[in-house]
Amino acid sequence: MTTQTAELVPSYVQGGWWTPASGDGSTLVLDANTGEELASVSTEGLDLAAVVEYGRTVGQAALGGSTIHERALMLKELAQFLNGRREELYQLSFRTGATKIDSMVDIDGGIGVLFTFSSKGRRELPNSNVIVDGAMEVLSKDGSFAGEHIYTRIPGVAAQINAFNFPVWGMLEKFAPAFIAGVPTIVKPATPTGYVTEAVVRLMAESGILPEGSLQLISGSARTLLDVLDYRDMVSFTGSASTARALKSHRNVLEGGVRFTAETDSLNAAILGPDAVPGTPEFDAFVKAVTTEITVKAGQKCTAIRRTIVPRALVDDVVRAVGERIDQRVVLGDPRGEGVTMGALASLEQLRDVRGAVEEMLAAGGELAYGTLDAPVVRTASGEEKVVEAGAFMSPLLLTWDDVENESVHSREAFGPVASVIGYTDLDDAIRLAAKGSGSLVATVCTNDGETARVLTTGIAGHHGRVHILNRETARSSTGHGSPVPHLVHGGPGRAGGGEELGGIRSVKHHMQRTAVQGSPNMLTAVTGVWHTGADRNLAGDAEFGGVEGAVHPFRKSLAELRIGDGFASPLRRVTQEDIAAFARETGDTFYAHVDPAAAEANPFFPGTVAHGYLLVAWGAGLFVEPAPGPVLANYGLENLRFITPVPAGDSVRITLTAKRITPRVTDEYGEVCWDAVINNQDGEIVATYDVLTLVEKEDTIYRNWPATA
Amino acid sequence: MTTQTAELVPSYVQGGWWTPASGDGSTLVLDANTGEELASVSTEGLDLAAVVEYGRTVGQAALGGSTIHERALMLKELAQFLNGRREELYQLSFRTGATKIDSMVDIDGGIGVLFTFSSKGRRELPNSNVIVDGAMEVLSKDGSFAGEHIYTRIPGVAAQINAFNFPVWGMLEKFAPAFIAGVPTIVKPATPTGYVTEAVVRLMAESGILPEGSLQLISGSARTLLDVLDYRDMVSFTGSASTARALKSHRNVLEGGVRFTAETDSLNAAILGPDAVPGTPEFDAFVKAVTTEITVKAGQKCTAIRRTIVPRALVDDVVRAVGERIDQRVVLGDPRGEGVTMGALASLEQLRDVRGAVEEMLAAGGELAYGTLDAPVVRTASGEEKVVEAGAFMSPLLLTWDDVENESVHSREAFGPVASVIGYTDLDDAIRLAAKGSGSLVATVCTNDGETARVLTTGIAGHHGRVHILNRETARSSTGHGSPVPHLVHGGPGRAGGGEELGGIRSVKHHMQRTAVQGSPNMLTAVTGVWHTGADRNLAGDAEFGGVEGAVHPFRKSLAELRIGDGFASPLRRVTQEDIAAFARETGDTFYAHVDPAAAEANPFFPGTVAHGYLLVAWGAGLFVEPAPGPVLANYGLENLRFITPVPAGDSVRITLTAKRITPRVTDEYGEVCWDAVINNQDGEIVATYDVLTLVEKEDTIYRNWPATA
Repeated sequence: MTTQTAELVPSYVQGGWWTPASGDGSTLVLDANTGEELASVSTEGLDLAAVVEYGRTVGQAALGGSTIHERALMLKELAQFLNGRREELYQLSFRTGATKIDSMVDIDGGIGVLFTFSSKGRRELPNSNVIVDGAMEVLSKDGSFAGEHIYTRIPGVAAQINAFNFPVWGMLEKFAPAFIAGVPTIVKPATPTGYVTEAVVRLMAESGILPEGSLQLISGSARTLLDVLDYRDMVSFTGSASTARALKSHRNVLEGGVRFTAETDSLNAAILGPDAVPGTPEFDAFVKAVTTEITVKAGQKCTAIRRTIVPRALVDDVVRAVGERIDQRVVLGDPRGEGVTMGALASLEQLRDVRGAVEEMLAAGGELAYGTLDAPVVRTASGEEKVVEAGAFMSPLLLTWDDVENESVHSREAFGPVASVIGYTDLDDAIRLAAKGSGSLVATVCTNDGETARVLTTGIAGHHGRVHILNRETARSSTGHGSPVPHLVHGGPGRAGGGEELGGIRSVKHHMQRTAVQGSPNMLTAVTGVWHTGADRNLAGDAEFGGVEGAVHPFRKSLAELRIGDGFASPLRRVTQEDIAAFARETGDTFYAHVDPAAAEANPFFPGTVAHGYLLVAWGAGLFVEPAPGPVLANYGLENLRFITPVPAGDSVRITLTAKRITPRVTDEYGEVCWDAVINNQDGEIVATYDVLTLVEKEDTIYRNWPATA
Repeated sequence: MTTQTAELVPSYVQGGWWTPASGDGSTLVLDANTGEELASVSTEGLDLAAVVEYGRTVGQAALGGSTIHERALMLKELAQFLNGRREELYQLSFRTGATKIDSMVDIDGGIGVLFTFSSKGRRELPNSNVIVDGAMEVLSKDGSFAGEHIYTRIPGVAAQINAFNFPVWGMLEKFAPAFIAGVPTIVKPATPTGYVTEAVVRLMAESGILPEGSLQLISGSARTLLDVLDYRDMVSFTGSASTARALKSHRNVLEGGVRFTAETDSLNAAILGPDAVPGTPEFDAFVKAVTTEITVKAGQKCTAIRRTIVPRALVDDVVRAVGERIDQRVVLGDPRGEGVTMGALASLEQLRDVRGAVEEMLAAGGELAYGTLDAPVVRTASGEEKVVEAGAFMSPLLLTWDDVENESVHSREAFGPVASVIGYTDLDDAIRLAAKGSGSLVATVCTNDGETARVLTTGIAGHHGRVHILNRETARSSTGHGSPVPHLVHGGPGRAGGGEELGGIRSVKHHMQRTAVQGSPNMLTAVTGVWHTGADRNLAGDAEFGGVEGAVHPFRKSLAELRIGDGFASPLRRVTQEDIAAFARETGDTFYAHVDPAAAEANPFFPGTVAHGYLLVAWGAGLFVEPAPGPVLANYGLENLRFITPVPAGDSVRITLTAKRITPRVTDEYGEVCWDAVINNQDGEIVATYDVLTLVEKEDTIYRNWPATA
């Protein structure tokens, strides 16, 4: 750390841009390909306590002013905005050593996470700020006391401490779920590539889409950030295991209750199945995957393949095939150079680290089977082929090992274009070797045999956050060993940090507190905004079964008028054997339990012939429906149907329908209403329970004056 | 720690009982009521590495030999066995200072957890060892690449480090979910009451029900246990925040990846709503709850109410009412004495600690509003009323505070029969004061107003693991503020340890690793044993739609013959307007979209009149059913029904049914089969998708020779 003259990358805090008064004590940032001075960073004089407090107060208040769906929609708008500004980001990204394809993984990939979370947030979560988790559990015999779980956002900030390799994706993949949860983010990018993060934050601020305090950026050191966090806050760390350890040792994590999750690079394995011999599509796919993982992003991915575990007899074949593929396909150089497919490491410091790690591995018994540690000839931006001493370039390397148990293979990571190839004897041995990584982010299992896939996958699953199964069916369509997707968990046990990111809505919930709530059905209804069985309701319909005189049929109410607990109680309708026989005839469902008394009686569940379950559900609709055009537009589905008590001919059924959950859409003139449906028989026994899913207009628009023109 | 002569409590390790060669360095255990010497404990010479390795190898192998349902059934058998041996446990438990009711909470409560988990394990989890988590996510346009999440057990041991207050429940509530997950347990109980845990472990071992290595017991110190654990293992700690911190600081947690969860006592609040004034049922329920929490288990519960937060004007009323209730109801003494309702603290050391804490609180500004710090007169086992110096007895105490912000109220815990009463001004103030506990296990919200319940509950939820809402509806039926139930999460953020226990099946999953699995539908099917859309299948039925000649209708197969992927493809059936009209007539479902062309056309989702969704589902059954008696006994329900493409008159529909999930029951001659159902129209478009749930015989027994006697 020295005094620098290069321009300081500003921080974005408390709603504005901030730069230290002087460049004293700042750290210099260089172009990875040329060594040119790009910028410097410093947080000298920045009040981190004020940054955190701004998030906890202004940020929490502003985000709390919207619902989950509203925030999800903002994410989509933000993604669209950033999509139109990608070109300027690519230009910056080249300077980090990233090729166009590397940059697309980072930039387009990051924007893609926003789109995915926007869509999932609106499709899979309620349009409120309380998420119900699981079913209500009745805790007293009379049903008056029950419990369930809710998620509400954590009451603090989500602090990101990120790695240098994905300055855009690394921020956005953590920002998206925090934002949907309603939790303000503070980003601390890694110094070597933080200027790319800053450029994206600048665009996000310019967009004007985000509520005040949703996002703050710390450009430069944030060593004292943990000093001002507590149990209300969370930290998502990506980087080395040693830094993770230092952060986890902070007193505010150990005793202050800061929620801490880490994703650290690991010794990820790729296992070649015994069936995937040379000449099979699996062998080819495997070689391609290993080559990709070594060379994309110059191997600087926490998910990259480090240990290639192959049948002992195939070690040489794999080394040869990967080497040949690298020779044929990989052009090392400045990403701005024509035809370059593999760029520099992120900095000369990284280059030193990686070389050092490889030298240690060679000293420990590894053998260099492909590539060289010498400074490679590379293609420059202008197309020259030469050695560039100031660029952080490194040749792809493959190592082999006489002793596959050598600890160095399984624990020493060279965070660059480096992988080892080791041999296994049988599947148990392959599982054992993969587990020697002591917890990894991801492993590839390459086989076309289902049983091999099952044995390997379930064998290593307990040690892994993700298992990628590769075979001829997915050779072309796979998103790849090294690419986390927003739908699936990213993170792994042990060495991989023990954390979880992404995984769809799971990661939104990681930004929330799960709380058990106990109380009466009325109180659970009040807290969650979802009607609970046993709570008060307002029924129209048959007075004998709870209908109140003057109450309006709930199908006549738009979302503006409908309240949870509004419902309808039907009269009883008697089922005859002729009804059952006619239904069997017309639907073709002549299952013996409906039409053959002797066979039905022999069935352990039926007293004799019984009505079809679907007859009861169809009658249920007939009993509750308000047939005239109105705000209820369609029945789009049904959930959780259970047939409880059989209905023989002579019994009667009635139905009670109650508005349970109302989800107005942010982008449409209607929303979803989920109705609780219960069919009872003449004795009050429960015949069937289910949820009816409908689409209902926000206002009674379409049919208000119907038939206007009819 | 001194050399003792009292009998050593043995450990149960590596399948047998172990006692150190001598009593050197052992710790003495005394009767809490009389001070009598009961036993001593020591682990001098115990090889903890061998204990852990035995669990990881023998225990994992033995538990892996059964499925989740089989283990769940063993839990039920174990619970029944222990149920018959409770009396001997009560007798031991009295010596810990526990009354009969306290002992029932511990012993019957612990056995109850086994019953609940047994039932939930079989009802809510698959009968296998791989649990699918969430839906399959299609990750490529052609559907050939997809992902989902699975849970498999962690590959190590579950180590429990428990508190002294619940020697039975504390072990069983952690053992049950670990056992169902298939993870071997190592229990380290607290020294003062570990002899009761030992007695239960002895019964469990005698029962012969548990697979080898499922359970080991360490009686005495286990200071070096963490030295031999790694990322494969988990530690569930219950106890003080300071011990939790020491354990979390261990290098094997910080960098070794040991999964660590803690449940520490916290400054739990009870908030009295503004509506719950004296004279209301809520005020009475509140007073009763506070009294219970102070006196049950002599207040030695991590969940006990420590901070009573009431409207400022009601502080005196609450103190007076609680004091009167204690005076009227509480008899302090040896639990073996007639009529005693509150026992001793667990040890004289505890008594010293609690008195010390109270003295500190008084020095900090608290005022003693009820009770005395003097040694109380108590009722002995023989019925005398006197001061027992060797017994750990303490009077219930209530403290009040002039300054409700005093840190001592919110952070100093007296782990005994002690609570503070403080006043709030409005709901925001009440929320703020409750949050000053910096993370708690549980809070009670006492109000009969839904909106007050909503504001308080969602306001404090982010700071709490559980919120208990108390009102007139639940005053009699509530399981209580202080009682964790197996269905709901126990644990809380921040000061409460940041962990989660119980919560139903959630806690089983805490003993498992969640792993994302990516691959083709065939590979996901192979790994999970559940058929995935897009995977190969074996269809009977119409050749035009995939039926294979000679394939047997899957309804003719018992579980012994049925394989996932077995299915049936129906022919097309044409829908006419007359079919729709007849269905409307017979079911009564004359919703305009089925019968009124003009109104239907105005609906944004329909091309004109369309068939009823339930008509299509009923026809679907008619199209796929094999009506003659056979091994398929009943359709008990349906899940995830979605109507995708409307079906106007003139269109045709067909159905494809595929066996998706097969769950044989451990205790019955049948099991559940879930069938994937897809209805397509004549153009191959998807009309509807759903899951059909059926009960199918394990062997084709009932109707094999039907009609034998007909």
